[in-house]
Amino acid sequence: QGANKGKPLWSHSSHLCQQIQFADQKQEFNKRPTKIGRRSLSRSISQSSTDSYGSAASYTDSSDDETSPRDKQQKNSKGNGDFCIKNIKQADFGRREIEIAEQEMPALMALRKRAQGEKPLAGAKVVGCTHITAQTAVLMETLTALGAQCRWAACNIYSTQNEVAAALAEGGFSVFAWKGESEDDFWWCIDRCVNLEGWQPNMILDDGGDLTHWIYKKYPNMFKKIKGIVEESVTGVHRLYQLSKAGKLCVPAMNVNDSVTKQKFDNLYCCRESILDGLKRTTDVMFGGKQVVVCGYGEVGKGCCAALKAMGSIVYVTEIDPICALQACMDGFRLVKLNEVIRQVDIVITCTGNKNVVVREYLDRMKNGCIVCNMGHSNTEIDVASLRTPELTWERVRSQVDHVIWPDGKRIVLLAEGRLLNLSCSTVPTFVLSITATTQALALIELYNAPEGRYKQDVYLLPKKMDEYVASLHLPTFDAHLTELSDEQAKYLGLNKNGPFKPNYYR
Amino acid sequence: QGANKGKPLWSHSSHLCQQIQFADQKQEFNKRPTKIGRRSLSRSISQSSTDSYGSAASYTDSSDDETSPRDKQQKNSKGNGDFCIKNIKQADFGRREIEIAEQEMPALMALRKRAQGEKPLAGAKVVGCTHITAQTAVLMETLTALGAQCRWAACNIYSTQNEVAAALAEGGFSVFAWKGESEDDFWWCIDRCVNLEGWQPNMILDDGGDLTHWIYKKYPNMFKKIKGIVEESVTGVHRLYQLSKAGKLCVPAMNVNDSVTKQKFDNLYCCRESILDGLKRTTDVMFGGKQVVVCGYGEVGKGCCAALKAMGSIVYVTEIDPICALQACMDGFRLVKLNEVIRQVDIVITCTGNKNVVVREYLDRMKNGCIVCNMGHSNTEIDVASLRTPELTWERVRSQVDHVIWPDGKRIVLLAEGRLLNLSCSTVPTFVLSITATTQALALIELYNAPEGRYKQDVYLLPKKMDEYVASLHLPTFDAHLTELSDEQAKYLGLNKNGPFKPNYYR
Amino acid sequence: QGANKGKPLWSHSSHLCQQIQFADQKQEFNKRPTKIGRRSLSRSISQSSTDSYGSAASYTDSSDDETSPRDKQQKNSKGNGDFCIKNIKQADFGRREIEIAEQEMPALMALRKRAQGEKPLAGAKVVGCTHITAQTAVLMETLTALGAQCRWAACNIYSTQNEVAAALAEGGFSVFAWKGESEDDFWWCIDRCVNLEGWQPNMILDDGGDLTHWIYKKYPNMFKKIKGIVEESVTGVHRLYQLSKAGKLCVPAMNVNDSVTKQKFDNLYCCRESILDGLKRTTDVMFGGKQVVVCGYGEVGKGCCAALKAMGSIVYVTEIDPICALQACMDGFRLVKLNEVIRQVDIVITCTGNKNVVVREYLDRMKNGCIVCNMGHSNTEIDVASLRTPELTWERVRSQVDHVIWPDGKRIVLLAEGRLLNLSCSTVPTFVLSITATTQALALIELYNAPEGRYKQDVYLLPKKMDEYVASLHLPTFDAHLTELSDEQAKYLGLNKNGPFKPNYYR
Amino acid sequence: QGANKGKPLWSHSSHLCQQIQFADQKQEFNKRPTKIGRRSLSRSISQSSTDSYGSAASYTDSSDDETSPRDKQQKNSKGNGDFCIKNIKQADFGRREIEIAEQEMPALMALRKRAQGEKPLAGAKVVGCTHITAQTAVLMETLTALGAQCRWAACNIYSTQNEVAAALAEGGFSVFAWKGESEDDFWWCIDRCVNLEGWQPNMILDDGGDLTHWIYKKYPNMFKKIKGIVEESVTGVHRLYQLSKAGKLCVPAMNVNDSVTKQKFDNLYCCRESILDGLKRTTDVMFGGKQVVVCGYGEVGKGCCAALKAMGSIVYVTEIDPICALQACMDGFRLVKLNEVIRQVDIVITCTGNKNVVVREYLDRMKNGCIVCNMGHSNTEIDVASLRTPELTWERVRSQVDHVIWPDGKRIVLLAEGRLLNLSCSTVPTFVLSITATTQALALIELYNAPEGRYKQDVYLLPKKMDEYVASLHLPTFDAHLTELSDEQAKYLGLNKNGPFKPNYYR
Repeated sequence: QGANKGKPLWSHSSHLCQQIQFADQKQEFNKRPTKIGRRSLSRSISQSSTDSYGSAASYTDSSDDETSPRDKQQKNSKGNGDFCIKNIKQADFGRREIEIAEQEMPALMALRKRAQGEKPLAGAKVVGCTHITAQTAVLMETLTALGAQCRWAACNIYSTQNEVAAALAEGGFSVFAWKGESEDDFWWCIDRCVNLEGWQPNMILDDGGDLTHWIYKKYPNMFKKIKGIVEESVTGVHRLYQLSKAGKLCVPAMNVNDSVTKQKFDNLYCCRESILDGLKRTTDVMFGGKQVVVCGYGEVGKGCCAALKAMGSIVYVTEIDPICALQACMDGFRLVKLNEVIRQVDIVITCTGNKNVVVREYLDRMKNGCIVCNMGHSNTEIDVASLRTPELTWERVRSQVDHVIWPDGKRIVLLAEGRLLNLSCSTVPTFVLSITATTQALALIELYNAPEGRYKQDVYLLPKKMDEYVASLHLPTFDAHLTELSDEQAKYLGLNKNGPFKPNYYR
Repeated sequence: QGANKGKPLWSHSSHLCQQIQFADQKQEFNKRPTKIGRRSLSRSISQSSTDSYGSAASYTDSSDDETSPRDKQQKNSKGNGDFCIKNIKQADFGRREIEIAEQEMPALMALRKRAQGEKPLAGAKVVGCTHITAQTAVLMETLTALGAQCRWAACNIYSTQNEVAAALAEGGFSVFAWKGESEDDFWWCIDRCVNLEGWQPNMILDDGGDLTHWIYKKYPNMFKKIKGIVEESVTGVHRLYQLSKAGKLCVPAMNVNDSVTKQKFDNLYCCRESILDGLKRTTDVMFGGKQVVVCGYGEVGKGCCAALKAMGSIVYVTEIDPICALQACMDGFRLVKLNEVIRQVDIVITCTGNKNVVVREYLDRMKNGCIVCNMGHSNTEIDVASLRTPELTWERVRSQVDHVIWPDGKRIVLLAEGRLLNLSCSTVPTFVLSITATTQALALIELYNAPEGRYKQDVYLLPKKMDEYVASLHLPTFDAHLTELSDEQAKYLGLNKNGPFKPNYYR
Repeated sequence: QGANKGKPLWSHSSHLCQQIQFADQKQEFNKRPTKIGRRSLSRSISQSSTDSYGSAASYTDSSDDETSPRDKQQKNSKGNGDFCIKNIKQADFGRREIEIAEQEMPALMALRKRAQGEKPLAGAKVVGCTHITAQTAVLMETLTALGAQCRWAACNIYSTQNEVAAALAEGGFSVFAWKGESEDDFWWCIDRCVNLEGWQPNMILDDGGDLTHWIYKKYPNMFKKIKGIVEESVTGVHRLYQLSKAGKLCVPAMNVNDSVTKQKFDNLYCCRESILDGLKRTTDVMFGGKQVVVCGYGEVGKGCCAALKAMGSIVYVTEIDPICALQACMDGFRLVKLNEVIRQVDIVITCTGNKNVVVREYLDRMKNGCIVCNMGHSNTEIDVASLRTPELTWERVRSQVDHVIWPDGKRIVLLAEGRLLNLSCSTVPTFVLSITATTQALALIELYNAPEGRYKQDVYLLPKKMDEYVASLHLPTFDAHLTELSDEQAKYLGLNKNGPFKPNYYR
Repeated sequence: QGANKGKPLWSHSSHLCQQIQFADQKQEFNKRPTKIGRRSLSRSISQSSTDSYGSAASYTDSSDDETSPRDKQQKNSKGNGDFCIKNIKQADFGRREIEIAEQEMPALMALRKRAQGEKPLAGAKVVGCTHITAQTAVLMETLTALGAQCRWAACNIYSTQNEVAAALAEGGFSVFAWKGESEDDFWWCIDRCVNLEGWQPNMILDDGGDLTHWIYKKYPNMFKKIKGIVEESVTGVHRLYQLSKAGKLCVPAMNVNDSVTKQKFDNLYCCRESILDGLKRTTDVMFGGKQVVVCGYGEVGKGCCAALKAMGSIVYVTEIDPICALQACMDGFRLVKLNEVIRQVDIVITCTGNKNVVVREYLDRMKNGCIVCNMGHSNTEIDVASLRTPELTWERVRSQVDHVIWPDGKRIVLLAEGRLLNLSCSTVPTFVLSITATTQALALIELYNAPEGRYKQDVYLLPKKMDEYVASLHLPTFDAHLTELSDEQAKYLGLNKNGPFKPNYYR
């Protein structure tokens, strides 16, 4: 199967999981995908991408306009045509979505205010490849306010909010993205961002590593002018560490994924809310009194368990790690093996990051009406493939909800075909995305302004102090008031009054 | 004043009744509403009804079929035409919804099983007027299994699930209901249920009192054969007590609304879940760290507060009743007056059953982005009318979500135009509806089979023991195992081993 | 067996009354108990009474003074000798305890302030028989401030805080009580309160009914001048209802026990705290991860379950009542029969009000180290007698803690010999006692000032409005601010602006 | 400045805080302390030490025996006299305490069982210096079962449970410790452990570093035979790192203090329980409705806040670190500066590890009856010294409880004179101590058996895998069942099936 078989694709906190085979891509990515290849890609990632921003982007493209955006002449109201999107007419609606997002992204707005005085990204030419959403738009407009020029493509063929892309294009951004790109479109868009007469990027903001990969592959000379890469996703970070290990990383890179704030917020707090939301929107299930088994008691599992317990569910936990297991016990959850409770539970939730946690054997033993979903890891945790057998009938009862029906009439309620429930069936609070976006902006500023030699050709975590700064920018939202150390106290603790306040390993 | 002043608005979980001008209606209800009256009705009640089963009934009637059902020839597949619904072709989809509902209505299914032996409603001719939903269908089919014949109309012009009505009609029920009836249609449907050659009802199942009222008005002689009325709603119960006080109640009536199980489940447990669901579906708001004020700490308020606190919100409570206030304190909520916190809160929720709890003065002082919604009482708690002034701009940003924009740009996020959030923007768990439906069924059985003289021409609560029986039928859902008293223990406590176990006033 | 069989044990939070042999007592109570009788009494009730105020009354009587208080000449510093207590020298320490209690009894202090203007108890001659504690002292001094004269005895032979009695005596009160009275002393003290030349009570404040009974028995003519009885305990209330039923109640009586505030606070909130406190003080057990079964899900059980769940225990519930059972399910507890979990649980707690809930059969099957205790009902719930068999060894390991050891070495940890844990091993918060004491004071005022004819010779509950008043007097403690109804709102709700705000049956 | 000026004495999780001045000691430790010196030492550490095991050691030495143990001839029942304790007659009582402790220390008991086959400490000669408690006794007897010989002294002059020491001596252990040692006794005991003809230790188990220091100072040659040091306390670990930095550490050392299990359990879970226990035992305060400010939201603060919120308190948090502050917000606590709430709160709890967090200025502004206590850091957090001024009156109302009275009558309730509440006024659950003791045992085994060269002369953390092993040994207590990875899953995750399962930095 090749080099990347074991590649950890787990993207606990990434917003959409790339599943593009890195090795294959090297040879293949700009080939026009065959019909079959396209289809299999579609099966593996499409739905997750399609639905992940469902409720935020309530606007429906019901237009019959089937013309590819690449084939259209496009111009915004100022006559600018350096972009490629679905439909510039949706710009107003997109602008409203951006404005709504701004209200929940206080830290970026604070950075903009500070930018009235200084322009820390003056001269920066940022090429970006991320999900194109209202939240990203707020980030992009902040980078611009800080002095940067931006060109942007989508990191996922399904996640683009067309109306937001329209608003960005209307606002003068060179955006190349639409919902429902083909694989070929995908790379074409990235290429359009990078390959421009008279413009060369000096900063990369990537989510998944595809943009970085493209430049490595096609324009390796560009790296001479590039000051650094900021990467958000697990997958992209993994690629960077591999490059670094292999001695092939030629600029410094910032690993945004592993910053404390992102980990804690994306996983614990976010999942605490989205597990309820995702289950309710899809099944209207009543939580009170329900028996639930949560597989895995990491941050995601902890969030799910806390929320369900609080709503009156009886929660069981499975774990492989004795330390997390002991935490589950102390937190008041019975620690079981899945087979001990599989017959009695009403809901099964996977949060392990592992594969084949819920296999056919367990599915066979679940009771009628049992709901099965995944909060953990792309689509590997539930062995959905094992359910695609002739004796089982699938019935799509609602969007993202399938009844799988056994010969005896038993129905299992499978959500999002085993893909991530929180991305497929609920929304991610903008406030949480704000933390990540702010970290990205600060990472760009840090790398762009770092004195020669501070960063080598390696992968770095943001300094603790910057993590703390990101957090501090989000406190005003809660009208929260930090206490300051007195000189005497700072001396007593051996700390600088402005932080960092904790050792790097503290979480 | 107008014709519709007292139109019974559906108030599933409201604790306080509509201030209905019963007398006026007597003269007015079968007048054809004027165009204007109709429109204003639509504004005041339509959305609540329309949206209340939003997520359950995802099926959309996008047909351009504008012909009134009253003008169509209708027949089901067996050639039966004694019904009037929107579209018989939706029967299959409706059947699936009914089957899904059956899974969460264990008590009715248990009654059906018992009915294989005895038919306690054999000979019963039930005329019903309720919301026509999948849950009601399960009730109707249960009544039939118990031996009853049923004819049914809708108690609300917007709440009918057309596909369910179709399934019922296809199944042989005489159903007269569709979503979007006119006022005239409404009474026409009720009349069609009652006014039939050679068929006369002997039991009434009502929700809101309109059916009862119609028979009083038009066919008073029918009451000679009627054994009793079962009424679910606050409004209808209120009407019955008025009739009883005036000495005009001519058959016994069962007040289902005030049974313990209904009160506790509909209010406390149901709202605990729906407040989160309603807020999330409409606004995607993150609960963690949000400051919320909940007005009213009755059962509904208790449910809302518990859920929000559990999800990390900081909750303030307002109360007028010192006992509830003290409970709020002991439960860990700061008890404030609204004006103390109105400037700082992120969310305002009304659960008082009162009117004008949130008035313009408070709305003026809320901060930008504040979310305002109502969980309590029809649409009186928030003074929405005060927001319909020229200097404020309304912007509909999503279904059920309006931004009201002040001249300085401040936006208030108003949900469901101040109508009940839980009905407008979230779903009511079937399991909770099951408790009410079972109580209705048992009340019918009790009244129908009661020996002469057990019930006078008065309004009764279900005997405590029957409340306990309803509860016991729902325990298997949770695999819950009741303990039985030994003879010795029963004697010690002075109780019958089979209950009732508590005095009537216990809640 | 004999004379003390039916001695009313104090059962502060028990919900069900003692099965008292009222008739026997009538003939027996003033017999001098035999030595053996006395000893068996001591075994059955002493510890509960002795320890119930343990932590509050840390002062230890280590004096060897074995002289009976009845045999001593006693005078306070002003030369007054109309009292009989243990040791007047402890007055200062007692005064401090009273002052501490005053801080947590805001409502009584508020009544005192109001009494500066009016003296609603002017002329009242109150004879009281209650536990003599710091909290009672605050009540007595409040009654005095309101204009009353008081004479007082203890309602329990072990519960008197000697130092408080001393402070009261020093302050001029005619108190007759000490810790460790004999049965004979008990009735002698009561008699001394009542039987005084030139003084006749016109109000009775009783806790358990012994004082009332004594007057019925010995001085029936006194009732001619008595305006009413205020009774706090379940037992006493039960006796009053029996008298009433028998047509023998000759003055009105107020049932304080069943007022909403008392029920909710004493049971739910108080037990929520005392279950943790009682278990911790006796066993230092860690709650996290412990499996606990709580028998009974009334108010007491609800409080226990909520607290233990919150501290990370895994809680199972047993119930006989399907409604409470369904509440337990919705609140997230598995409902089981005791035998399903008895082998696996770490802690067993009874809160049923029933007898023989935990019998030998269950005790035999518990695992080593299992803790067994009772929060519900005097000492009947656990069949402790069944453990007093030759093959089991009892080992007293700490005060109130016994290890019962099986032949195979298994140890059961039995707390307070099955008596009420919250009274024996934890303290009752003064704030909760304040609610009851205030209710008593208001009941006295109401009965004393009621116009002729308002109350007949029957047992009454306090009017709802007065319950609300008691609650409102306790709100300032929490800096809680009540909202007031506007005239318009009051009219809309059909309520008086000053309450009552809820129907009588509301709880 | 002196070498130890800045020595962090903070001992968050250590059981008793050493406050002995290291530098002074070098010259002074075997001098007889002067009266004044002794007294001041006593003031600073005595009470904390005295009371910390209060409830466990209920046995009171009321004997008038004032003879120093050093001056007594001592022999156990087998004639062995190689020990020095208070009173060998208490051995039986001590044995019972040990047996009780064994029930909550499952992991050590499991190690004993395994030791029936192999003796991993065969030949080990362990000299130990720790608190001498029932839990330590279980550890010592386990080490013996594993093959070790042990000699033991106390690491604190007040913490020895005399009856446990007696049981150990009776059991053949060479124990040198009693409650209330003088400073000179302290070092004499340590010396007696080490300085023995014909016996030389090869392993050190230390808690605070005093034993290690003594050997460095007096018998440096001993280190030639010593295979390693296991150190539990923050203080001792700090000393070891200093030695290591200075190049003076001559054997490997294990830092037990910083193992994950110890940190998480000692701080988060333990404090969650002990904050309630400590407050209740000292003040009987009712938690419901109380306003509390918790200073610091690290693990200790998180535990305190969670418990108090769960019991119905309204909790405010102060923080200096923005990340912890943001966590507090998301967890539902208002983040404030102390001065914003100091006038309104009922309870102030410090958990910062800082000094002078609550200073006189704040104490002056607290309201009457406010309770002030410290859960964080020795006795520095509350500026108690500032309260020892002439205008304030101190009144000791109970053990560990002082009222500090302002001229206007306001009383502040100060607990444990600002020392650690959880050690002074509550007990530490044995189960939590078990985790630490097991870690110590495994660390000894690891160091003793490590092949040459695995450990250098440095300070090590226990390998993650061993942390996991400690955790796994505690799971059976909860009847918890770990899931095992399949081969396929382990390969997928890139993990060994037996762990470690998480990176070292995971917590």
